[in-house]
Amino acid sequence: MRPYVTVNLAMSADGKISTRERRQVRISGARDFGRVDTLKAQQDAIVVGIGTVLADNPSLTVKSPALREERRKEGKDEDPVRVVVDSQARTPWGADILRRGTGERVIAVAESAPRERVEQLRELATVLVTGTEQVDLDQLLRELHRKGIRRLMVEGGGTLIWGFFSRGLVDEFCTFVGPVVIGGKDAPTPADGEGFLREQDFVRLEPPTVTECDGGVMLRWRVRQG
Amino acid sequence: MRPYVTVNLAMSADGKISTRERRQVRISGARDFGRVDTLKAQQDAIVVGIGTVLADNPSLTVKSPALREERRKEGKDEDPVRVVVDSQARTPWGADILRRGTGERVIAVAESAPRERVEQLRELATVLVTGTEQVDLDQLLRELHRKGIRRLMVEGGGTLIWGFFSRGLVDEFCTFVGPVVIGGKDAPTPADGEGFLREQDFVRLEPPTVTECDGGVMLRWRVRQG
Repeated sequence: MRPYVTVNLAMSADGKISTRERRQVRISGARDFGRVDTLKAQQDAIVVGIGTVLADNPSLTVKSPALREERRKEGKDEDPVRVVVDSQARTPWGADILRRGTGERVIAVAESAPRERVEQLRELATVLVTGTEQVDLDQLLRELHRKGIRRLMVEGGGTLIWGFFSRGLVDEFCTFVGPVVIGGKDAPTPADGEGFLREQDFVRLEPPTVTECDGGVMLRWRVRQG
Repeated sequence: MRPYVTVNLAMSADGKISTRERRQVRISGARDFGRVDTLKAQQDAIVVGIGTVLADNPSLTVKSPALREERRKEGKDEDPVRVVVDSQARTPWGADILRRGTGERVIAVAESAPRERVEQLRELATVLVTGTEQVDLDQLLRELHRKGIRRLMVEGGGTLIWGFFSRGLVDEFCTFVGPVVIGGKDAPTPADGEGFLREQDFVRLEPPTVTECDGGVMLRWRVRQG
């Protein structure tokens, strides 16, 4: 048993999620921002990779006061559980994801993570240990499910998203395609990592739901199962 | 003066045009294939980079007999002029682009291209020399315009497309986004090369024309000028 997994991101018309220097860039607009905030408020947890924490220092909190209020009325924390996949426990002590907002934080580390760093992080977060050198995403999702997490959103980056796709752990893939071209063979893309080599291994998607918005287009794909 | 430039390609939902081994993969279906063939038949010339010639050996001919017949009736060659951007004159002697179909072929080389290779290629193609080490795309487009080419389509790959975008030489960007995820930080994307580093340098696009097709979506963007 694992949560229902939604990958959500904004990419340029040429398939980049930032520049090759990993600088955070504005690809979508106000309407898409609102959509993402709503999607976030519907989740039990939001997951992000350590690369994104180090590059962007996101807080991953729900921004709209109304949505926060709604969650509170439902007896939930104002923010979903925030999870960092961080095999070697490198999350900075002052990271916004640990310091801002409400609710539980989970740092997912591997067995080989430096013990001292892990002990420090335990003061600010729940630490889940899976895998030897690298976090075992299947096991992590089982443990999150056991903690009551049923809906989980993956915010990036491209390496973590590849980890989810390559293990068949994605149910829904939402991409806002924005009206810019960024370019760059080394710029991060929605799914980095090794990549599939054989066509028969590609993840297959159902025809998308298409919504025009902010000068670009929102594509919501469901992963074809089996 | 330069031709009107359309970039056309198919990419996966995660922004890849092939696997990291550059294996040619099927991203679109029969309807998109027909659309591309029609678009091709409307062009005066089709341009491709030497990387794509070496990896895929495309012929870039118009496939539909009806479209070929139509071009003939209009007094044109059945195939548009086919152009290879090939700074060092590496186009293989037996390449399909030289051997298949009708009409003129142009090999665009730089001044530093090996003289012997250039002389060989002259037997099968018109050779245009621009730039010292690398083909000068601005000058190449001016020369193609002088030869009467008014509509030109760029078929790829990602490095050549980046060359066109980075110099502001694109008018229209057509991408079919297909229902697969390929992944891979080293897989080719619609625009590779260096990439822009500063947000103010990004190429800006008008809101796209959206057409659902073959389980994916066709996005036709016009480049915002000035």
